[in-house]
Amino acid sequence: MNGKGLIIAVSGPSGVGKGTVLNAVEAALREGETGSVGRSISATTRNPRGTEQDGVEYYFKTKEEFEKLIADGEIIEYDVYCGNYYGTPAAPVRQMIGEGKVVLFDITIEGSLALKRFFPEDAVTIFILPPSMEELETRLRGRGTEEDDVINARLTQAKLEITRADEFEFLVTNNSVEQARDDILAIIKAWNLRKTRQITATKNLV
Amino acid sequence: MNGKGLIIAVSGPSGVGKGTVLNAVEAALREGETGSVGRSISATTRNPRGTEQDGVEYYFKTKEEFEKLIADGEIIEYDVYCGNYYGTPAAPVRQMIGEGKVVLFDITIEGSLALKRFFPEDAVTIFILPPSMEELETRLRGRGTEEDDVINARLTQAKLEITRADEFEFLVTNNSVEQARDDILAIIKAWNLRKTRQITATKNLV
Repeated sequence: MNGKGLIIAVSGPSGVGKGTVLNAVEAALREGETGSVGRSISATTRNPRGTEQDGVEYYFKTKEEFEKLIADGEIIEYDVYCGNYYGTPAAPVRQMIGEGKVVLFDITIEGSLALKRFFPEDAVTIFILPPSMEELETRLRGRGTEEDDVINARLTQAKLEITRADEFEFLVTNNSVEQARDDILAIIKAWNLRKTRQITATKNLV
Repeated sequence: MNGKGLIIAVSGPSGVGKGTVLNAVEAALREGETGSVGRSISATTRNPRGTEQDGVEYYFKTKEEFEKLIADGEIIEYDVYCGNYYGTPAAPVRQMIGEGKVVLFDITIEGSLALKRFFPEDAVTIFILPPSMEELETRLRGRGTEEDDVINARLTQAKLEITRADEFEFLVTNNSVEQARDDILAIIKAWNLRKTRQITATKNLV
């Protein structure tokens, strides 16, 4: 691994298996020689619940603190949900990149694109596709708890999201967790071999 | 592997091990599910020697045939050596790409850059670096047959070539054949996952 870290921003429709694939990528990176892995933590203005701790589940901020971060350009992307802000603060991500970590994001389409704008050279955007819409439906129904109209709404939403896949740099089809994991590991390896990340390799020689 | 093939254009200084690494890449691709592999054959106007056959060692052309190919823009790159033309004809490469083959080139710096200009989306340029100049010198001396001044001339030439590494898309350091091979295999895999090569994956879904 080079000195500089890397952001892997992964989006895809609900039910496509982003979380499972990213957990497998994280496990493989921890076993390998690729350097350490980081997971991004969101910031929010909602109150902590139960045993939630600041800097573990979320960075808990006041409305004033959050709005100051937005004004300072220090929030990469944010959204408002039930009257509270949720977003990705730039400082912890910047620090993890500086420490040479691979920072994994399971994030919305807008979140991935915002990460790429914020860190053009150090962020890679990947969209996860299902093998087929039938398979996606099977996976959504497999969760067992949803009504038909909820499933249908999710499938309609999934189709809308898939039409935006071409805004991403890489498309990975999740035929199996192992194949999708290996595809993402190959993308990480190849990205680190790009000439822009290998300048020191040449400098050390001549 | 997608329907469309890929050109892997590999350059690097004499003694860096390009040939050995490319043979290992070819062997791995033939074993894997990545699709078939092609090797480019040069065209030349020199006469066949011994058992050389047209379309095996070289495509043998007359001076008039070769110059017509140049005039038609059908020679990707060429050079003149001892009064004969040597070059890469476009038609066989185009055909192999259409057949979905990975076409491996062990080629000069100018040759790699010409391939990229000719096939911007389907060619990937990779420069192979030695782990150190000391190691490159050891490898050059290991061949055993060269005088000191020949070795020194090669090392000077190698340094000149390495300063041009940043004209390539990817830099791979040849610490070992296995590592360099795996780096190139990851580049091939990742390149095929780029959105521009995955358009049909999305089209089939929505």
